Amino acid sequence: MHKSITSPQNPLIKQLIQLKEKSRERKKTNRFLLEGKRELSLAIKGGYDIETLLYFPDLFSESEAEAMERYTIEIIEISKEVFQKLAHRGTTEGVIAVGKTKSHTLEALKLRSKNPLILVAEAPEKPGNVGALLRTADAANIDAVIIANPKSDIYNPNIIRSSVGCVFTTEIAVANTNEVISYLQKYNFNIYSAILQESKPYHTQDYTLPTAIVVGTEATGLTQEWRDAATQNVTIPMQGIIDSMNVSVAAGILIFEAKRQRDFK
Amino acid sequence: MHKSITSPQNPLIKQLIQLKEKSRERKKTNRFLLEGKRELSLAIKGGYDIETLLYFPDLFSESEAEAMERYTIEIIEISKEVFQKLAHRGTTEGVIAVGKTKSHTLEALKLRSKNPLILVAEAPEKPGNVGALLRTADAANIDAVIIANPKSDIYNPNIIRSSVGCVFTTEIAVANTNEVISYLQKYNFNIYSAILQESKPYHTQDYTLPTAIVVGTEATGLTQEWRDAATQNVTIPMQGIIDSMNVSVAAGILIFEAKRQRDFK
Repeated sequence: MHKSITSPQNPLIKQLIQLKEKSRERKKTNRFLLEGKRELSLAIKGGYDIETLLYFPDLFSESEAEAMERYTIEIIEISKEVFQKLAHRGTTEGVIAVGKTKSHTLEALKLRSKNPLILVAEAPEKPGNVGALLRTADAANIDAVIIANPKSDIYNPNIIRSSVGCVFTTEIAVANTNEVISYLQKYNFNIYSAILQESKPYHTQDYTLPTAIVVGTEATGLTQEWRDAATQNVTIPMQGIIDSMNVSVAAGILIFEAKRQRDFK
Repeated sequence: MHKSITSPQNPLIKQLIQLKEKSRERKKTNRFLLEGKRELSLAIKGGYDIETLLYFPDLFSESEAEAMERYTIEIIEISKEVFQKLAHRGTTEGVIAVGKTKSHTLEALKLRSKNPLILVAEAPEKPGNVGALLRTADAANIDAVIIANPKSDIYNPNIIRSSVGCVFTTEIAVANTNEVISYLQKYNFNIYSAILQESKPYHTQDYTLPTAIVVGTEATGLTQEWRDAATQNVTIPMQGIIDSMNVSVAAGILIFEAKRQRDFK
């Protein structure tokens, strides 16, 4: 028998709601909330410490919960009412967990390949965009994603959800733009900053050396620092009526051109 | 002085709310609601008949409204209360218009180039995905987007919004899958169906002849008809942990590989 919580007024539950809703609380406690089976399994695969698992038995069986005992310290059965309080909009899988955040410093980045390919996103506006970028990074199996000048922490529930759990398996660093540029220069990356002005068409450039592809916001693009630091500013030729593209689509086009040139190795 | 409506109970306003919310109503009346300055200007650019323009003078000035008189039959000033009833979530530009829908049959498609490049999306699940596909189609200036087996009509407010108005300037046809395949075969298109099984890497194929790139849903992919009809089934090599990609990112990668091969002409 697992411990059971039936009241949304329980102090632990109140604390977990804070963890879900407040970036500040996640930073203070170095904990985050995740939900869903795939997300849980990817977090474990990504080497995250899961401290507590909460399950609503109508949706996540006791035996499934027991199977998690080898990973988790504490397993708690929760009532429907508690589950609905904790769950993000639309969650239907009956499982919620508390994980320990990791360090996402540049120094902690582990690049798997000797000829790395990295995506840098500066100040991405929407959690959904960050999630889509992480999915693309996963599909292309690039070495890392670096968020420069972040607008939200990466454990934001909307980032976890829109990344469908890729946030847990992708190498991620978060830092300010100057630090990221210093890091890339220190390790001799070619920097390709995606901008519209004074740039060359992306497909005319060579991405076969250590490469960082840098994308900015849809509204304002990249800051001047990235233009100055670029090995080459690159643009995706825009031939339409409106002069903009979804940032995750643009990043996908650039990353997969690099992958193509590298013969998907 | 323009005619003025101050009550949300006004029969015209009630009818327009139906137009916004119900696909059935749009089909029955061949009318749709749009909002925002850019959307309005792109609809005019796209050759749409705007029948009525409604403006809330705190946000859209009377002189702006007057400048529209050469396009529109009727201009109506509305109160804040009416504006809030009509506006889609978050609209802040104070202008709403009623347009006449166009015919989107395959027969009505006008392909500008002799060597066309077309995107086909089968049963896209979310209006936001359709909008993102239309933005990409606009950026690449492809000849047309065909929606096969649609799940919503293209005048859905979420499609208009997420396409940032590209829905009005892109050549669009809507038909069922069998009709679309017949059309493509009749005009000798090479059909590249994006699927995971029995397919070749997308970047090994030649897209320089008349080409249709076909993408399915994120959940279930393309139907068997598209696999059977394909000149070649193609896949984007997936090297990550999860085996999926955002459909608009995938379409962007495929379309821009075709554009690259065509030297962006």
